[in-house]
Amino acid sequence: MQITKENLIQLDKTDPLRNFRKKFHVPEGFVYFDGNSLGVLPEITKERMQEVIEHEWGEGLINSWLTGWGDAPKRIGDKIATLIGADSGEVIAADSTSINIFKVVVAALQANPTRKVVLSDSDNFPTDLYMLQGLESFAPDKIKVKITESFDIDNQLNEEVSALLLTEVHYKTGLITNMKEVTKKAHEVGALVIWDLSHSIGSIPIDLNGCEADFAIGCGYKFLNGGPGAPGFLFAAKKHHESSKPILSGWFGHREPFAFSGEYISAEDINQFQCGTPPVLGLVALECGVDLLCNVDFEDLRLKSKKLGAIFISLMKDMCNMHGFTLISPQNDEKRAGHVSFSHEKGYEISRALKSRGIICDFRTPDVIRFGITPLYLRYQDIYYAVKQIKIVMESADWRKEEYLVRDSYT
Amino acid sequence: MQITKENLIQLDKTDPLRNFRKKFHVPEGFVYFDGNSLGVLPEITKERMQEVIEHEWGEGLINSWLTGWGDAPKRIGDKIATLIGADSGEVIAADSTSINIFKVVVAALQANPTRKVVLSDSDNFPTDLYMLQGLESFAPDKIKVKITESFDIDNQLNEEVSALLLTEVHYKTGLITNMKEVTKKAHEVGALVIWDLSHSIGSIPIDLNGCEADFAIGCGYKFLNGGPGAPGFLFAAKKHHESSKPILSGWFGHREPFAFSGEYISAEDINQFQCGTPPVLGLVALECGVDLLCNVDFEDLRLKSKKLGAIFISLMKDMCNMHGFTLISPQNDEKRAGHVSFSHEKGYEISRALKSRGIICDFRTPDVIRFGITPLYLRYQDIYYAVKQIKIVMESADWRKEEYLVRDSYT
Repeated sequence: MQITKENLIQLDKTDPLRNFRKKFHVPEGFVYFDGNSLGVLPEITKERMQEVIEHEWGEGLINSWLTGWGDAPKRIGDKIATLIGADSGEVIAADSTSINIFKVVVAALQANPTRKVVLSDSDNFPTDLYMLQGLESFAPDKIKVKITESFDIDNQLNEEVSALLLTEVHYKTGLITNMKEVTKKAHEVGALVIWDLSHSIGSIPIDLNGCEADFAIGCGYKFLNGGPGAPGFLFAAKKHHESSKPILSGWFGHREPFAFSGEYISAEDINQFQCGTPPVLGLVALECGVDLLCNVDFEDLRLKSKKLGAIFISLMKDMCNMHGFTLISPQNDEKRAGHVSFSHEKGYEISRALKSRGIICDFRTPDVIRFGITPLYLRYQDIYYAVKQIKIVMESADWRKEEYLVRDSYT
Repeated sequence: MQITKENLIQLDKTDPLRNFRKKFHVPEGFVYFDGNSLGVLPEITKERMQEVIEHEWGEGLINSWLTGWGDAPKRIGDKIATLIGADSGEVIAADSTSINIFKVVVAALQANPTRKVVLSDSDNFPTDLYMLQGLESFAPDKIKVKITESFDIDNQLNEEVSALLLTEVHYKTGLITNMKEVTKKAHEVGALVIWDLSHSIGSIPIDLNGCEADFAIGCGYKFLNGGPGAPGFLFAAKKHHESSKPILSGWFGHREPFAFSGEYISAEDINQFQCGTPPVLGLVALECGVDLLCNVDFEDLRLKSKKLGAIFISLMKDMCNMHGFTLISPQNDEKRAGHVSFSHEKGYEISRALKSRGIICDFRTPDVIRFGITPLYLRYQDIYYAVKQIKIVMESADWRKEEYLVRDSYT
């Protein structure tokens, strides 16, 4: 198929996911390529939030803990489980992704207690590395952090490694790591594996138990469309529940939180990975996003994601070939998840110029422009429009405007 | 003044806080004595949440991080600071109270590094004790937890104590601990003090810096009316910022979160006590509650709180004297904060029977009925009505109904 505007409009008309776009509040006047950073607002979330605020909090007050709030972390966890190939009772929605990393690293060390090394790659998302560093600074006798280049992970994976912490989909390039293969290799040397699914969930099919994964964590506000700063989630394979002894031992992880006993005895099930009082408002918004994803055929989703990405890459070649962009995402559709990224020495300025033209992408230091591919609300024709704008920006040298040189604190 | 229904109605008419009640959604048909557990919904929160969801998230999307979300933890922290006698830059709104306890205990140990003992009282709120226990289980070389009876705290406060973790207002009895006196005693033996303000903030005047307090944490969903599972807050006196090295070292506590460097370097200011991405929806709701409190004259608030409590106690003596209630809150107004509690061997059943009559109180094991006193939306006449209902329940033996014997999971 030749990639023309008309052909793409035609693809949209026959897209099996086309009815999902109207389930989201997709603002007029721009194309949003940042759903991998903050997913758009599901329409249902407006209603549901009004209900939880005005009815459940406003009217139901404390009693609402008994009628839906109290079991929200596990209920939402069970829904997320269906998106990641986990069983009911293996996932909990709680806290932030960073806090959840801390919990699973500790649990992994406890599940594999004769070893201390936690291995990760230097190109992992920074907070993953930071959380390891913080833990090591406090308990160097319990954990030895080894951070190596990603190509070197295989070499470093040996009998000293207690756990390997990797992100399945690279936050800059969208490269998919083969979860099954890596987990198998790790297990062969007796290491456990923790998968960060922040850029995978809601974007590609995931089969944690099919890969015999040990632990996982992920983010609620990207492809799950759970809202700004949504709670994260945590997966712990059932076989590791017994050995876990939470350090973040708050009352909601207690076996009987409302017995108010003075001694911490952790819940035996996934609830042990809760800590403080669940953040109800955030959880309710997250649940709306998760519910939407639970109704998606992931084969359709993945197929459209690959096609959108492939078309983006192809159009960039056709229309912007001479403008200095280097594709840093895999060309191979099978290896690329939910974003398409280019490096460009003027990446920052270009991303700003694109934003001012309604093409909302993001920039990651030092030179990466990242376009998030969200098949539930992005259309084929949006890709055409976006690449055309990129072409205009480059040809007009629009990005040279002084206003685009000033960096804001978030870049 | 004789306590009659008419006199109480008269008090309501001249109450300087009387205009606050309509700023809250106070449901019809019951009297809510659980504001110490989950504060009621401020009217403004409905609007503000709609705005953040539909406008800031729905329309502004990722850009809203630059226009209010990004600095919300510190901005709200600064507002909370004015309620607790802290300076700007000493308070952050983040995570749950439990997680914040973990952070300040670690920071206290780092600020007083030659000692290991963290002392607390066995009657402290359970999650405070649990968080200490979890930390000790992981790093027994760094922290030795000593939990003693509250009367014994003075004896145990010695040169081995690194930090003392106490709750200012007891969660069952409402007893106020003299923060200034205890902090001074602790400092005399070189110990630091961490104050849990969960049952104080929004209920009594607090002067952390006036007491030379070192650290504090507190809850957002009680007297701050921040919503179910609202983020907590954390106070760290400026003098302790430099020695702190966060273990919960997530990217939002990094000096330059968006530099995406591989090495954790903590922010030098209060932001170092952030961890993951801030929970925006929860923070926005919390801010509404905090804003309301910032407009309250705390002398008026405290005076009304004392009067409401005194009237409750007095009416219980007059009307329910023979029904087996024992006041476990201080009789002395100066020592009692925002709740009035009674023990009764049938406390659970009575609290259930009261709920079914619209008197929403709570029960704390083994035998405590707790009535939260929230002067911003409780009226003097509500106290009269409530005690009358208690009298009816006791005289009719209403509480013996079988349905009140079944315990739910939250009690």
